[in-house]
Amino acid sequence: MGKRKKTKIAVGQAGGPTAVINASLYGFVNEAGDAYEIVGILNGFQGLANNQFVTFNGALKQELRQSRDVPGAFLGSGRWTMERQDMVQAVQNLKKLDIHYLVFIGGNGTMWSCKELEETAKELHYDLAVIGIPKTVDNDLYETDHAPGFASAARYVALSVRDIGKDLQAMQNFESVRIIETMGRNVGWLTAASALLKETDAQPPHLIYTPEKSLLFHKFLNDISETVKTIGYAIVVVSEGIRDEKGQIISQLALNEQSQQQVLGGASSYLSRLISQETKLSSRSEILGMNQRCSQWSVAAQDRLEAEEIGKQAMNGIRQGLSGLMLTLLSSSELNEPYAFTIGSCPFEKVAGLERPLPSCYLNDTGTEITDSYRKWLRRIVGNDIQGYPDGMTLLGKIAR
Amino acid sequence: MGKRKKTKIAVGQAGGPTAVINASLYGFVNEAGDAYEIVGILNGFQGLANNQFVTFNGALKQELRQSRDVPGAFLGSGRWTMERQDMVQAVQNLKKLDIHYLVFIGGNGTMWSCKELEETAKELHYDLAVIGIPKTVDNDLYETDHAPGFASAARYVALSVRDIGKDLQAMQNFESVRIIETMGRNVGWLTAASALLKETDAQPPHLIYTPEKSLLFHKFLNDISETVKTIGYAIVVVSEGIRDEKGQIISQLALNEQSQQQVLGGASSYLSRLISQETKLSSRSEILGMNQRCSQWSVAAQDRLEAEEIGKQAMNGIRQGLSGLMLTLLSSSELNEPYAFTIGSCPFEKVAGLERPLPSCYLNDTGTEITDSYRKWLRRIVGNDIQGYPDGMTLLGKIAR
Repeated sequence: MGKRKKTKIAVGQAGGPTAVINASLYGFVNEAGDAYEIVGILNGFQGLANNQFVTFNGALKQELRQSRDVPGAFLGSGRWTMERQDMVQAVQNLKKLDIHYLVFIGGNGTMWSCKELEETAKELHYDLAVIGIPKTVDNDLYETDHAPGFASAARYVALSVRDIGKDLQAMQNFESVRIIETMGRNVGWLTAASALLKETDAQPPHLIYTPEKSLLFHKFLNDISETVKTIGYAIVVVSEGIRDEKGQIISQLALNEQSQQQVLGGASSYLSRLISQETKLSSRSEILGMNQRCSQWSVAAQDRLEAEEIGKQAMNGIRQGLSGLMLTLLSSSELNEPYAFTIGSCPFEKVAGLERPLPSCYLNDTGTEITDSYRKWLRRIVGNDIQGYPDGMTLLGKIAR
Repeated sequence: MGKRKKTKIAVGQAGGPTAVINASLYGFVNEAGDAYEIVGILNGFQGLANNQFVTFNGALKQELRQSRDVPGAFLGSGRWTMERQDMVQAVQNLKKLDIHYLVFIGGNGTMWSCKELEETAKELHYDLAVIGIPKTVDNDLYETDHAPGFASAARYVALSVRDIGKDLQAMQNFESVRIIETMGRNVGWLTAASALLKETDAQPPHLIYTPEKSLLFHKFLNDISETVKTIGYAIVVVSEGIRDEKGQIISQLALNEQSQQQVLGGASSYLSRLISQETKLSSRSEILGMNQRCSQWSVAAQDRLEAEEIGKQAMNGIRQGLSGLMLTLLSSSELNEPYAFTIGSCPFEKVAGLERPLPSCYLNDTGTEITDSYRKWLRRIVGNDIQGYPDGMTLLGKIAR
């Protein structure tokens, strides 16, 4: 009896890695079991166009199992925009290997490439099913309640701002302001997450600024001075992509100022210098950096679980013959009820290349504070096992300087 | 029967806070119990000179108990150099309150002030016993095997570099080099800690640069190019205070370059730009920042324990009538044996204002790698509960770009 050839499925990872992207890959590969031949695409779309594949044999599956909870992308990732000829080449590469199923784990850029690839295959009369697994620390994907990777990054931001707040509170006689910069070129989800553990007005962050709302320099300086006067110090959190009243990206202003030199520190650095120049307050900037997307210790348990589950369901989607879809996470409970989720899906065109802003209902009127509804929404996915600190020596602020 | 007045002891915290400095304060106050009246000095030496005291009543003791594991300095800290008149004022303030015992938790600057205060009191014929409790994330105090605060910061650095390494490994087709900057103006203990979890040559960090050894630009660029050629990417860790072959502080070069503007990013930013300019490699800089000294999640269990214990022993030192001493942590076992420590002491002049460099025996000949002896020494205080990652997709590096 001849051995029947296994159906092949290609899977890749694209865009910036997260701390749980490998859990999705593991969920997918593990669910496929021995019924399918899984072909890994190395280094994202570049590998797909350049014929860089690896077969998940037993040893590689074992390696993946060991890397399930390791940050970074197991298969390698990248930022690579596919041109038309790359799309055609990619389809030809898949055809050569007789692969009719393609799965990519990524964000809105990845979903755009998935959509284009599916269309290119159709044009070339090649039968190709494409499924997308969401992944982003920015949480800027539409249609999904949130994307795997975000909750862990949010947890990192919330804990860092809580801890840096205590540090500055203790040093308020030496320095007054810290401008902390989070990821988020166009959306403020992560910046808003910095306020998750805030319980009283005195606690950090005292002001947040997201790209969804213009930062007015005059008001910004005034609000910070007021905060320092009232609280004794100010922890301010800004998204890397915040814009000024003219719609200019503030980190670009920093670029101009330094006569087109490479951006050094971006928005937070620019704002920190502005404070030092325009007020008598001492200020320092702090970029939370890559740790936001790769810290293993800050992985939220729910995030890891959902990342793996959605990977698993992508395999089920293949079995059901689905195509042209990104899977989504849908909350199946009200904010006040215990959290539960289901997995749904949406056509690529609903998410491809689009960025979902933080809804205005999650920010107060000035845009500098989050609402309780955001805090409740976020808490469900970040976990109940982290808390804010006691206010502590409120006496400190009362001492004349 | 009249109530006998309790002996008063003043205690303060000075310099940059750490994640375990409050454990030392708690250990001290808790050990004092109800037998003494503990007077907290707010905001470090500035509070001592300006008469900013608070009595540890029951409520404040309760508040301290809740803040034992909270980062930042419970009493407030600062960076304040005491002039002669401040010293005199400080002694007069203590005299007014009839306080004859003074304890400060801090680093080599703090120990200098302690020594000066003790001498000033002597000159003024005021009976004052002074004891110092060590604290520094830089680990630059002499006489002690290590200082409370360092192991937790080292743990933070080791974990961050491990995780950022996996992130860059996955993105090596998009960017090649990350220059990660740790704290350490004059000593490389923390930078060297970044290699704690490295197990193979392929793992990060691939190169480290400490202030103890000049960085030679030519060799630096060459080593990075070689690393990228061999490994596929390069994780480089530098201390904020590294110097070039002329002995110039590299972050100061960055300052000059920007025509005396505020330093933006310091050494790592300067070196990253140098790489982009002088090689074809894409490079990014990353400053680990304040999280190194305040992250609660990265606290090493041994560090917390030792911080509390040394606080407790300071109280015992007061009982024994000691003065003019900083307490020290002494390892009482060989590197290959299970770790054990005892608490000793040394005169202030042996530590005051002095910075202990990383011994050359802890670095290899080029200064860019740590030795096994450093790894063993560090592992004992950072803990065995954190590990490196599997090398992972070594395939990635083999793919032609």
